[in-house]
Amino acid sequence: MTAINLAPTKKGYPLGITEEKLAEFQVLLATRRAGFSLEAPFYTDDHLFNLDMQGIFGKHWIYAGSVAEVPEPGDYITVDYGPYSLIVLRNDDGGVNVLHNVCRHRGARVLTEDAGTTGNLVCGYHSWTYSPEGQLIHASAPGEMEFDKKCYSLKTAHSRIDAGLIFVCLADEPPEDFAETAKVFEPYLGPHELQKTKIAYQQNIVEEGNWKLVMENNRECYHCDGHPELACSLFPTWGLTDGIIPKHLEDVWDRNKDAQAALEERCRRYGLPFEVFEELDTRIAGIRISRESLDGEGESFSPDGRRLSKKLLGDLRDFRLGRCSMHLQPNSWFHFLGDHVVTFGVFPINAHQTLVRTTWLVADDAVEGVDYDVDKLTHTWKQTNLQDKAFVELCQQGAESPFYEPGPYMKSEYQVEAFINWYTMRMREHLA
Amino acid sequence: MTAINLAPTKKGYPLGITEEKLAEFQVLLATRRAGFSLEAPFYTDDHLFNLDMQGIFGKHWIYAGSVAEVPEPGDYITVDYGPYSLIVLRNDDGGVNVLHNVCRHRGARVLTEDAGTTGNLVCGYHSWTYSPEGQLIHASAPGEMEFDKKCYSLKTAHSRIDAGLIFVCLADEPPEDFAETAKVFEPYLGPHELQKTKIAYQQNIVEEGNWKLVMENNRECYHCDGHPELACSLFPTWGLTDGIIPKHLEDVWDRNKDAQAALEERCRRYGLPFEVFEELDTRIAGIRISRESLDGEGESFSPDGRRLSKKLLGDLRDFRLGRCSMHLQPNSWFHFLGDHVVTFGVFPINAHQTLVRTTWLVADDAVEGVDYDVDKLTHTWKQTNLQDKAFVELCQQGAESPFYEPGPYMKSEYQVEAFINWYTMRMREHLA
Amino acid sequence: MTAINLAPTKKGYPLGITEEKLAEFQVLLATRRAGFSLEAPFYTDDHLFNLDMQGIFGKHWIYAGSVAEVPEPGDYITVDYGPYSLIVLRNDDGGVNVLHNVCRHRGARVLTEDAGTTGNLVCGYHSWTYSPEGQLIHASAPGEMEFDKKCYSLKTAHSRIDAGLIFVCLADEPPEDFAETAKVFEPYLGPHELQKTKIAYQQNIVEEGNWKLVMENNRECYHCDGHPELACSLFPTWGLTDGIIPKHLEDVWDRNKDAQAALEERCRRYGLPFEVFEELDTRIAGIRISRESLDGEGESFSPDGRRLSKKLLGDLRDFRLGRCSMHLQPNSWFHFLGDHVVTFGVFPINAHQTLVRTTWLVADDAVEGVDYDVDKLTHTWKQTNLQDKAFVELCQQGAESPFYEPGPYMKSEYQVEAFINWYTMRMREHLA
Repeated sequence: MTAINLAPTKKGYPLGITEEKLAEFQVLLATRRAGFSLEAPFYTDDHLFNLDMQGIFGKHWIYAGSVAEVPEPGDYITVDYGPYSLIVLRNDDGGVNVLHNVCRHRGARVLTEDAGTTGNLVCGYHSWTYSPEGQLIHASAPGEMEFDKKCYSLKTAHSRIDAGLIFVCLADEPPEDFAETAKVFEPYLGPHELQKTKIAYQQNIVEEGNWKLVMENNRECYHCDGHPELACSLFPTWGLTDGIIPKHLEDVWDRNKDAQAALEERCRRYGLPFEVFEELDTRIAGIRISRESLDGEGESFSPDGRRLSKKLLGDLRDFRLGRCSMHLQPNSWFHFLGDHVVTFGVFPINAHQTLVRTTWLVADDAVEGVDYDVDKLTHTWKQTNLQDKAFVELCQQGAESPFYEPGPYMKSEYQVEAFINWYTMRMREHLA
Repeated sequence: MTAINLAPTKKGYPLGITEEKLAEFQVLLATRRAGFSLEAPFYTDDHLFNLDMQGIFGKHWIYAGSVAEVPEPGDYITVDYGPYSLIVLRNDDGGVNVLHNVCRHRGARVLTEDAGTTGNLVCGYHSWTYSPEGQLIHASAPGEMEFDKKCYSLKTAHSRIDAGLIFVCLADEPPEDFAETAKVFEPYLGPHELQKTKIAYQQNIVEEGNWKLVMENNRECYHCDGHPELACSLFPTWGLTDGIIPKHLEDVWDRNKDAQAALEERCRRYGLPFEVFEELDTRIAGIRISRESLDGEGESFSPDGRRLSKKLLGDLRDFRLGRCSMHLQPNSWFHFLGDHVVTFGVFPINAHQTLVRTTWLVADDAVEGVDYDVDKLTHTWKQTNLQDKAFVELCQQGAESPFYEPGPYMKSEYQVEAFINWYTMRMREHLA
Repeated sequence: MTAINLAPTKKGYPLGITEEKLAEFQVLLATRRAGFSLEAPFYTDDHLFNLDMQGIFGKHWIYAGSVAEVPEPGDYITVDYGPYSLIVLRNDDGGVNVLHNVCRHRGARVLTEDAGTTGNLVCGYHSWTYSPEGQLIHASAPGEMEFDKKCYSLKTAHSRIDAGLIFVCLADEPPEDFAETAKVFEPYLGPHELQKTKIAYQQNIVEEGNWKLVMENNRECYHCDGHPELACSLFPTWGLTDGIIPKHLEDVWDRNKDAQAALEERCRRYGLPFEVFEELDTRIAGIRISRESLDGEGESFSPDGRRLSKKLLGDLRDFRLGRCSMHLQPNSWFHFLGDHVVTFGVFPINAHQTLVRTTWLVADDAVEGVDYDVDKLTHTWKQTNLQDKAFVELCQQGAESPFYEPGPYMKSEYQVEAFINWYTMRMREHLA
C-alpha cells in the first residue's frame, strides 16, 4: 500500500493522486444517484481508499474500543485504521491518552502488541522513552547531542469516552456535534455500566472487502434470511409493520407486538429510554439507537431467548430488556442487553480488506464456566459474522466487474442509503 | 487489482490511465518492430493489462468452454476473464445464455461455484431471483417498494456455439467475421461430435505470466525439445520440410511423409478435410487449422501412438486420424483426435497471472477404467502443460528486467509473430 | 511490481512516473532537512523505488559477492537488484563476466539457480547458447533463418574484483572514483586473502522494509543494546570517547583503551593499517574502514572473544586482530577478522522488501567440525541479523503512517546521516 503523505502534495491530497483522478472522483461524488449503491471505484480504487482515510477516518470521531479493553491505568490497546496506527492508553484520570504509534526519532512503531500494560513507553529501537502522555523524557546516551525534547513528543489525537465507549479523532479540530450525539445515547447505554464489565471474548476477522461494504451490510436486515442463528432471536416479522403482514405471520406479529408492548412497559417502569432516535445522515455524528424486543424469553441472543450470562449488568433490575442497538457513523455498531454487550468496530486495512473486531462483554464479577459459557455466549454473532463476511466478499468480487452498475436500495435498506448519503456528503465537503 | 470502470473517464478508457500513459502506450504500439517480441510493458504493466481486457477480451469473440461442460439445460459454468465474471448457462434451445455474474441489486456474485446446475438464479445475499435468461422475477419482501423489475435484468453477453465450442462476446456489436471462421472449422471438427462427449478430466493451472506469453508459448514448437512426452507423438522432423532434413533424420522424414500421405488418403476416403487453413492475422477471428499425422500408431497422444480411449468419437470410422489442431485468436487452441479431444482455454487473471484450463473429452459412452484410464489419457498434456508453465514464467521474469529488449522470432515461430501482429493491430484500432 | 522500461518514456524516467510525481519527488529531495531521516515516500513509494533502482543501483558500483562464492572458472551466482537480474560468472582470467540474465530471443531467464557451475550458457527455452562471455554461439534448428548472431549477445555489465570482493556496475560509464576507494581498502583487506577462503555458511533473509532502512540500521550502534550477543564482542563503551565516560564504565574504558593500544601495536608490528578512513559522503564510492579491538580475547565474534576457526586467514600471523570493518555505499558492509570474514550484501526486492545476504568465510583448508563449528561461527550475526530485521520492520510500519515525520539523527548516528546525505546528493544529481 502506498502511504499517505500530505505534506508535499498540492492541495494537501495524498501523494500519487493526480489532478485528473481527483477530478474524476469529484465527478463521481457529484453525480452519485440517490437511492443507489456507489460506483465501483469507491469499493475498489486504492486512491479513493486513501481519500477515505483522509476525509472520513482522518477527520471524524471514530470508534476505537471500550473501557473494558483498558480497565486500569497503564492498560493500552493499539488500533490501526488504514495507514494510521494509534496507542489508546488508559490514564490515571479515567480517560485515555491517544498517541500516534510512531517514534519521533526514526519512526519505529513504539508499542508492538495489540494490547498490554505499560508505564512509560519505551521504543524498542533506541530506547527513546515517552511519558504516558507522550512527552519525550529520555533520549540520550553519554555524550549525545543536546536537543529540545519538548519538540519530540509523540503526536496525539483527541479522545472522548461516552458511556464507556472510546472514540478518537485524528483531526486538529474535531467535529463539534459528537457531544450532542453522546447526550442522545448516554441514557440508553449508561445503565449497562460498561465500566463494570470485562471482556469475555474478542474476535478479529479480516473480510476481503472494502470497509463501506462492511458497513452497508450491517445497516440492513433484508438479508437476514442468511442468518439462521440470529433469526432465532429476531422476530420473523422483523422490519415489517401493520398492514403488510403476510397471512402466515399474523400470529407471530401479534406475539411481536405483545413483546414490544411488554418491553416498553418494563422500560418505563425502570426509567429506561426505548424510543427510536435516528439521525444517520442529518448530523455529522450520525446515529440510530432504539430498544427492541427479542423473540422467545426476550433476554438474550440465544436460541430460546434466555440469558447467556447469569449476572445482570450495571444497575439493571431485569433481564428481559431485549436489545438496545446503536449504529454510529462511520465505523461501529453495538448491542446492549441485560446480560451482556456486543461491540463491533470496523478497521479498514486497504481498499480490499477490512478488520472487524467483535467484543463480548459481561459483568466483571461473572465467572466463566459458572455464570456464562463462552461458546454459547458468542455462538450467534460468531456465526452471523462469518455469514456477513461471505456476503461482503461476494459484493467486493462483483464490484470488480466492469459490468457492475449501482443498484437500487430497497425500503428496508434505508439505513444503507443513509450511510452512503452521509459518506457522500462528507466526502464532497472534504474534496470541495 | 484496480477495477475497470469506463463510465466516468475521459474517452472511455479504464480509470487510472492518464493521458500521458495512453500516449506512451500508443507510441509503443505504433513503433512495434515487426518480427520481434513486444516491449516489456505489454507483459508487465497493470494499466496495459486493463487495456487488454478492454480492447481484446471486451471486444472479441473469446472461448469459454465446450458443450460437454454444460450438457443439459440448466447446467452452467462460471468463467472469469480478468475483472469480467460470466455465467454460461445451457438453455432449453440447445444454446447458452451468457449472463454477467453481478447481481443488479447490490452487486454480489450471483453464482459462486465453478460449475453446477440451476433453475432460476437466486442471489445468495437478498434472494433476488432471475430467470435463466437473466430476467429479474422476484425481488421483494412484504411491504417493499415497487420498482420496474424489467430494468434490472442480469446483463447479458453474446454467445455462439460452433462445432460444440462455446464462444462469448462482451461487446455490444460483436465482430462479424466469426461466422466465416466457424464455417472454416466446422467441417474439420463437426465429425468428432462434441455434443456426444463428456469430460474425462479438467485441469486448471495458474501460470505466473502474462496471458500473451501463454499464447506465444503455444504458438510454436521450436521449444518442443523441452516436451519429451509430447515429442513421442510428434515426429522428430516436426516443423521441417524437404531440403532441410539433417542426415540422421532422413529415415524419420520418410516415415513422416508416408504417415502423412496415408492420413490424407484416409481423410479423403472418409470425407474429412485435412488441408492447412491459416489466417491468423489476416482476419479478426484469426484461425489456423489442419490435420497432421502422429508418430507410432498415429492414433493418439500416447507413447506408442495407440488410442487412449477405446470408443471412437462421433461418426468417425477410424482411429488413425492423427490430430486435427486448431489455433484461434485470442485465447484458445484444440486437438481433436479419433478417440478424444483436448481443449485449452486461456483466462487472464492479472498482468502477471493467467489461468489455463485444459479439458479432456471422450465419447459419452466411454466407461472410465474400462474404455479409458484417466492417468494415461491425460499424461502427455499434463506434463506438457507443466513444462510450458515453467517456460512462460521464465519469460515473465525476464521481461521484468530493464535490460530486456524485444528479440527476433525465428521462422518456426511465425505463428507467434502472427499472434503478436494480430494483437498489435487490434490494440492499435482500439486506441485509435 | 511494475517493470522499469526506460526506452519510450519522456526524459528517460521509468514508465508510469508522471511529470507531476517527478516534480513532487524533486521537491522532496531539494527540501530534505539535513540531520533528519527522509520523508515517508522514500521508504514506501513504489515509483520512488523504481527511481532508486535507476539512479542508485543502475548507476553506481554495487556489491555482488566475493570470489569465495565463485572460486573456479565456470562457477556462477545469480543476483537480483529489484528488477535487474544478473549472472556473475568466474572466467579463466580470474575475473568475472557479468551478464544480464535475459535471453536475447524471447527474454527468458537463462540461468535459474542461485549458484552453480556452467560451461556455455544454454537457455532452457529454445536452447539459445551463449559463450561464458555472453556471445551467442548457437541459435538455430535445421532450415531456420539466418541472422547476425553478433547482434544478440547477452547484455553485459561492468565488473571489478578488489581484495576478493566483486562489484558490478550497470551503467554505460561507471563512476571513476571507485579505483581510489579500492586503493584505500586493499591494504586493510588484502592480507586476509579472500581468494584462499571458502563459504562456511550463507544466510538469506528477507526483511519487510525498504533497502534504505536496512542500510540506515547498519550505520549506527546506538541501538546495540538490542544486540546482546554482539554486545559481548563490542566493548560496552563502544562509541564513547574520553570525557563522556560514565562512572560505572571507567574500568571498561581503561580496558578498551588498553586493548586498542595493544591492537595498534600489533598492527604496526605486522604492517597492517588500522586507522579510521572515512569518506562516506564526500566521494561517490563512499567508504568507511578501520580496525577496532574486540572485548575479551579480542580474536573473534564469540562470547569470550576467542577464535571461532582454528585456521588463520591468508598470511596473517596473529589471531588477535580485532575486526577490520568496512562500510561501502550503497549496499554492503564487511567484518574481516583473523579467523573469518563476514560479508553483508543488500539486495532490494521492492519498496517494502529487501534481501540481506550474509556470508561467513573461513580459510579454505579449515575443516568443518574440526577447525570450526558452523553454529558457533554464525551465532552472533545470525542473532544480530534477526534483531536488525525486527528493527527495520518497525520503522517500515511507522513510515506508513501519515503522522510519521522525519526525526533527528543523534551524534552517534552520523554515519546514518552520511548515508542519507550521500543518497540525497546522488538522487538530486540523477533527477537534475
